[in-house]
Amino acid sequence: MVGYAFMGAAHSQAWRTAGRVFDLPLRPDMRALCGRNREAAEQAAERLGWSSVETDWKQLLTRDDIDLVDICTPGDSHAEIAVAALEAGKHVLCEKPLANTVSEAEAMVAAAESAAARGVHSMVGFNYRRVPALALARALVAEGRLGTIRHVRAAYLQDWIVDPEFPLVWRLQKDRAGSGALGDIGAHVVDLARYLVGEVESVAAQVATFWPGREVDDAVESAVRFADGAVGTISATRFATGHKNAFVWEINGSKGSLAFDLERLNELQWSEGTGGFRRVLVTQPDHPFMELWWPPGHVIGWEHTFVHEILHLLTAIADDADVAPHGATLEDGYRAAEVCDAMLRSSESGERVSVEYR
Amino acid sequence: MVGYAFMGAAHSQAWRTAGRVFDLPLRPDMRALCGRNREAAEQAAERLGWSSVETDWKQLLTRDDIDLVDICTPGDSHAEIAVAALEAGKHVLCEKPLANTVSEAEAMVAAAESAAARGVHSMVGFNYRRVPALALARALVAEGRLGTIRHVRAAYLQDWIVDPEFPLVWRLQKDRAGSGALGDIGAHVVDLARYLVGEVESVAAQVATFWPGREVDDAVESAVRFADGAVGTISATRFATGHKNAFVWEINGSKGSLAFDLERLNELQWSEGTGGFRRVLVTQPDHPFMELWWPPGHVIGWEHTFVHEILHLLTAIADDADVAPHGATLEDGYRAAEVCDAMLRSSESGERVSVEYR
Amino acid sequence: MVGYAFMGAAHSQAWRTAGRVFDLPLRPDMRALCGRNREAAEQAAERLGWSSVETDWKQLLTRDDIDLVDICTPGDSHAEIAVAALEAGKHVLCEKPLANTVSEAEAMVAAAESAAARGVHSMVGFNYRRVPALALARALVAEGRLGTIRHVRAAYLQDWIVDPEFPLVWRLQKDRAGSGALGDIGAHVVDLARYLVGEVESVAAQVATFWPGREVDDAVESAVRFADGAVGTISATRFATGHKNAFVWEINGSKGSLAFDLERLNELQWSEGTGGFRRVLVTQPDHPFMELWWPPGHVIGWEHTFVHEILHLLTAIADDADVAPHGATLEDGYRAAEVCDAMLRSSESGERVSVEYR
Amino acid sequence: MVGYAFMGAAHSQAWRTAGRVFDLPLRPDMRALCGRNREAAEQAAERLGWSSVETDWKQLLTRDDIDLVDICTPGDSHAEIAVAALEAGKHVLCEKPLANTVSEAEAMVAAAESAAARGVHSMVGFNYRRVPALALARALVAEGRLGTIRHVRAAYLQDWIVDPEFPLVWRLQKDRAGSGALGDIGAHVVDLARYLVGEVESVAAQVATFWPGREVDDAVESAVRFADGAVGTISATRFATGHKNAFVWEINGSKGSLAFDLERLNELQWSEGTGGFRRVLVTQPDHPFMELWWPPGHVIGWEHTFVHEILHLLTAIADDADVAPHGATLEDGYRAAEVCDAMLRSSESGERVSVEYR
Repeated sequence: MVGYAFMGAAHSQAWRTAGRVFDLPLRPDMRALCGRNREAAEQAAERLGWSSVETDWKQLLTRDDIDLVDICTPGDSHAEIAVAALEAGKHVLCEKPLANTVSEAEAMVAAAESAAARGVHSMVGFNYRRVPALALARALVAEGRLGTIRHVRAAYLQDWIVDPEFPLVWRLQKDRAGSGALGDIGAHVVDLARYLVGEVESVAAQVATFWPGREVDDAVESAVRFADGAVGTISATRFATGHKNAFVWEINGSKGSLAFDLERLNELQWSEGTGGFRRVLVTQPDHPFMELWWPPGHVIGWEHTFVHEILHLLTAIADDADVAPHGATLEDGYRAAEVCDAMLRSSESGERVSVEYR
Repeated sequence: MVGYAFMGAAHSQAWRTAGRVFDLPLRPDMRALCGRNREAAEQAAERLGWSSVETDWKQLLTRDDIDLVDICTPGDSHAEIAVAALEAGKHVLCEKPLANTVSEAEAMVAAAESAAARGVHSMVGFNYRRVPALALARALVAEGRLGTIRHVRAAYLQDWIVDPEFPLVWRLQKDRAGSGALGDIGAHVVDLARYLVGEVESVAAQVATFWPGREVDDAVESAVRFADGAVGTISATRFATGHKNAFVWEINGSKGSLAFDLERLNELQWSEGTGGFRRVLVTQPDHPFMELWWPPGHVIGWEHTFVHEILHLLTAIADDADVAPHGATLEDGYRAAEVCDAMLRSSESGERVSVEYR
Repeated sequence: MVGYAFMGAAHSQAWRTAGRVFDLPLRPDMRALCGRNREAAEQAAERLGWSSVETDWKQLLTRDDIDLVDICTPGDSHAEIAVAALEAGKHVLCEKPLANTVSEAEAMVAAAESAAARGVHSMVGFNYRRVPALALARALVAEGRLGTIRHVRAAYLQDWIVDPEFPLVWRLQKDRAGSGALGDIGAHVVDLARYLVGEVESVAAQVATFWPGREVDDAVESAVRFADGAVGTISATRFATGHKNAFVWEINGSKGSLAFDLERLNELQWSEGTGGFRRVLVTQPDHPFMELWWPPGHVIGWEHTFVHEILHLLTAIADDADVAPHGATLEDGYRAAEVCDAMLRSSESGERVSVEYR
Repeated sequence: MVGYAFMGAAHSQAWRTAGRVFDLPLRPDMRALCGRNREAAEQAAERLGWSSVETDWKQLLTRDDIDLVDICTPGDSHAEIAVAALEAGKHVLCEKPLANTVSEAEAMVAAAESAAARGVHSMVGFNYRRVPALALARALVAEGRLGTIRHVRAAYLQDWIVDPEFPLVWRLQKDRAGSGALGDIGAHVVDLARYLVGEVESVAAQVATFWPGREVDDAVESAVRFADGAVGTISATRFATGHKNAFVWEINGSKGSLAFDLERLNELQWSEGTGGFRRVLVTQPDHPFMELWWPPGHVIGWEHTFVHEILHLLTAIADDADVAPHGATLEDGYRAAEVCDAMLRSSESGERVSVEYR
C-alpha cells in the first residue's frame, strides 16, 4: 500500500477484515506499507498491520512477495505509480479520482488494458458502488423495477471548508489534488450516475470558487443529459453548511423511484409506483453483502464499503475476470474524469458540452 | 373572480376565510363569479359563496360594486383580462404564471405601473411567498442569519402524468397553458429563488418532453447562477414518481442553511452554523401569520397560503402601498417568465443564457 | 354554539366551510353564538360569522330556529348543557372530554340514549377520528391488513407548560378542566386506541404532577392491555420539551404496522409485512374525505378535521342514523372517561385496574 | 473467548480492530477461542483470528497466557464461567444479560467484588453505553443540559419472530435464554435508562407471550417511575412488524430533550429548549470516540460499539480502575436483571413493584 493517511487507514482496516468475514478466494497478506518518511511509515505500519516498510514505491515493484499495489496517495502520483505497477505485473487498486488530468487517465487505461491481456487486474476505488444499498439500487434498476429512467438528481454535500480559516491542505492545492470538490466528490457522483443509469451524454455546468485566491473549485452545479434520454442535475460542494458527508441522490423512473443519503448508508428509499417512498433497511441476509455481517438491523458503516471492494477485486483476480460491471475499471475512472473535465469546459465556455470518450 | 375550477375554489375559500381570522383593513364582499357557462357558473357561485354571476368577464369591469378582479383562468387569457381590469380601475389579483408569453407579461407590467400611479394595485398569485415557513426563511436570509448565500438547490416534483393514459387536460395544451412543468411549477421555483436569494444572473438548462407528441415540456433541469455569486440548480418535473407536490429546496450560506418541503409546509429545517439541521415547526405565535390561527403545533394547510395572500393584498390596497417586496408584483411575474424563457432558449441553443430584463 | 375561544373559533371555521366543500345533506345556518359577556360575544359572533348572540345558553334551547347545539365550553359545564339540550330536542355536538367526572358522563349517555329514541342525535368531538390518515388507518385495521394486532404504543406530547411561569389558565384549574393532560389529551389517545384497536381491558398507570401546588396532572404514563390480547403503552404529557402537538402512535400487527404523527397529519407510515415503513401521503382522491379538497399533495391542516366531523354529524342527522362507529357517541365519550378514570385509580392504588363499563 | 456465534464474531472483530484505531494501554493478543465442537471451533478460530482452541472453558482458566475471559455464550452458562474465571484471577467481559436468574447475578456480583479487591476487573457487555451518540447523550444529561428529567420513553423493537414458522432457536428456549424479549433486549433498555437517567424506583408491567406453547416472553410493556421523579415507559418486543433493530428512546427534561434510534446510531436528536429537534451527526472529532475513526460524516456501524467497549475495559484494567460509571459493572448487570425481574413479578401480580436491590 502506498500512502497511509485517512484513506490508507480505511484500506488497511478493510484488508485486515475482509478475510475474517467473507470466504475470500485469495488470502491477503499485508506485506508492505510505503511512505517517504521512514519513521512515520514504520509507526503507521505497526499501527495498521503491515509487516514491512518501503520509502520508495518503486521498491514495491521489485519485490516478488508483492502481487498487488494499493495506491492511496494524492492524485498527482496515481498515474506514474499505477502504470509502473501494471507494467511490473502487479494488480492495482487505485483510489479515486483516477488521475489529475484526462491525459494521465488515458495513459493509465492503456496500461490497464495491456496488463489485462496478461492476467493483471486493476480497479479504481469508487467504493460507493459497493455500499449494499447502492448495489441493491443498481440491481433494481437493471431488473427494470424502475421502468424507463426519467431523472437523476444527485449532490455530494460537505461543509468542511466553510470556515475561511481552514488550512490549505493538499486537497485544496491544485498541483496535488488536480481539482477541488469536482474531482474529489463530484467524481463519485459521476461514477455512481454512470453505474446506476448509464452514460452521460452532455453537461451544462457552473463551477465556482468562493474564496479569492483558492486554487481549486469549491463547488460545481450542473444540468446533465443521459444517453437514454433521462435528464437531471449533478452537484458537488464543500460549502453546504450543515452537511458533513451527504451524498444524496434520487432516481425517478416510469415505474418507481429510489433515493439515498450516504449519511444513512444502510437505508434505501424506494417508491414502487406512485404510492410513496418506503424505507428499506438494507441489512437483510438477502441484501448484497449482508449475509455474512450481522443480524438484520445491525447497521454497518462507511469503512465496510472497502471490505466489499476488496472482496470484489480479489474475486476478479482469482477468477481472472474483469471487475466490471460492478467494480470500477480504470476505463470507468477515465470516463468519470472525462465527464468532470467536460463540466469544467462547459463552465468556462458557457456552452453545453457533449461527453465524448477517446 | 374569473374562473372557478381548482384555483377558483381555493381562492374562494380564502376570500371567505380571511376576514374571519385576521383583522382586515378592508372587508371583502364576494360579489360576482364569472364563467362562460351560466348554469355551471351559478352552481359554482352558490357552492363557493359568490352572490352573482357573469358570463363575460368584461361585464365585471363595468360594475361599480366591483373593486377587485381575481383572475383564476388558464394563462392564455390573463393578459387581456388583467390589462383591461387595471385600465378600468380595478385592483387585480392574477394567478401565476403571469402570462403565456414574455411579451404579454411586459404589456401587463406596463398596465400595472400605469394603474399604480392611479392608486390601483395588482399582485401575482405566487402564494408560496406567504407560506409561514417561507416567510420566515425570507426573514432569516434578509437578517443575514445565513451569511453569504452560496447555494440554492430547488426542485418542484410531481408525478401526476407519469401514467401514459393521462388525458390531455388544459394544463397539457400549449395554447392554453403556454408551457408545461416549466411555467406551471418551475415558475414557482424561480419566483421563490428570486424572493429568497435575489436575481438570477444566468441559466443553463435541459428541457425534456418524454411523451412523443405531447405539446408542452414535462420537465426542466438547470444550473443557475445568481447575481450575488451563489450557484445552484432549479428543477421542475411532472415525472418524479412517488412525489405528489414536493416543492423541495435548500439554501446554503456561510453561516447556516435552510431546507423546506411543501408536502410538510409547516416545517422549516434550519442549520445554524455547521451543527446539523433543526426542525422548526412554524406554528408559534411569533412566526409569520400564525398568531391568529391555532395553538402551537396545530398545523395549517396549503389553502391557508391564499388567505395570507389576500391579507397582504388588501393591506397594500388600504395603505395605497406596493405589494412588494413580500407580495409578487406583476414585474415579479414578468421576471419569473423571463427566467423561464431563458431556460427554454438555453435548452434549445445549448448555451448558457444571461437573464436580462427589459 | 356555546363558547367562542380557541375551540369555538375552530368549530366556526368548520361550520362556515363544510357546505362550501362537501355536498351536505343539511345546510348549516349559523344562528347564534352564546357567551356570558354580551359585548365580547357580539364581537366574536361578528368575527366568526354567527348571526345573533345569547348570553345564557338556556335561551338557545327555547329558540325554534335552533336545531343543534355545539358545546365548546370548559368541561365543567358540558353535562348540564348537553343534557338540557338533548331534552329540549336539540342535536348536540359536545367537545371532549365529554365531562369532568364519570358520573356526569353517565348522565349524559342516558340523556343521549333517550334522545336518540326521539331522533335527536349527539356526537363527542373526538375530531382526530376524522383525520384522513386516521380514517384510512381504521379502514386498514378493519380490513385485516395488519393481521392480529399485537401492540399499540401511543403518546400525546406537548410542552406548553414546561415554563414554570406559565399562567394558571382554565385548563390548569381542577374545577374547570376536571383533569390535566389526562383528560385533555390523554382522552384523545384513549379514544383513538379504542377506535383503531378495540376496548381497553386493563391499565397500569403512573400519573405525575411536576409542579408543587398545581391542581391537575401534568402527565400520565401507562401500560395497557386490550381485550383482544394486544399490549402497549399510552402516554400523555405537557412536559415533552420540543414537541408542540405530537400525537404519535404506532400499531404493530402480525401482517404489518402503521405509524402516525399529528404534526404531520397528512402522512401515514405503513409497513406491509416486515419490509419497512412507507410514507403514504393521504391526499389522493380515493383517500377518506380527500376527493373534494385539493389535488394530490396539497396538504390540509388541523382545522379540517372539524369540517369532516360536521359532515359526518349532519349526515347522521339527515339519515336519522347513529354517528357510530366512525363518529364518537356520548357512550364513546363516557368510555374514554372511564378508561382515564381507571388510570387515575391505578396510579393511586398501585394496582392494575380492569376497565369495566357501567 | 468462550462462544463464537454471532456475538463471538462481533467481539472478535472488535478485539482485532481496537488496537489498530486507538492507542490501547494494553495490547490484546487473541490467544484462544473455546467451543465444545473442536472442528467447528478450529474453523471459527482460523476465521476470526484466534491462535488456539479449547473445548472446555475450564482449560482457559488454567492457562498462564490468558489474562481475560470474554464470555459470549447463552445466558445459562454465564454465572458458572464468570465466577470461576474471576476466582482464577482472570479479568472478565461478560455478554448481557448478566445471568438467567437474579440469584445467579447476585453470586456473580459477589465474585466480582471479591476479585476487584485483587485488581481483577470485570464488565458486562452493555455495549450501547459506548455508542458515541449515547455517550454524548449521557454527557449532556450529566452536565445538566436537559435540566430536570421528566420523562423517559424507550422501546426496543424487533420483528424477527413475527413469522409463526420461525424455528425454536436458543434465544426462544427458556432454559438457555432465561427469558425472551425482556432479558435479551429489554435488559438493554433498562441498562440505558439507568445509565442516562438513574435508578428505576418502580415498575408496572404487562408481559405477553403471543404464540401458545412458546416458552419465553415475546414482549413487555411497562410504566416506570425513576428515583428522581421522572416517569415513562419501557417496552421491548420481537413482534414490532417493520422494525429490525430499532432501539428508540426519548428523554424530556425541563431544559431540553434527546431522542435516538439504534438503526441510525450515528445520529442524536437534540431539542435545546422548546424550539424543535436538531439532528446531530455524532461523527465530529470532539464527539466521544470519534477523533480516531474517520472524517466527519463518515459513519460507523453497530460493531464499533464493541471496539469502544474493549478500549474502555482495557483502560480500566491498565489503570486498575473501576469500569463504572461509563462501563457496566456486574452490579449494573445485576440491577438490570432485578428491574427485569420486577417487571415479570408486576405482570404476574397486577401490582406496581418497587425495585429493591439486595
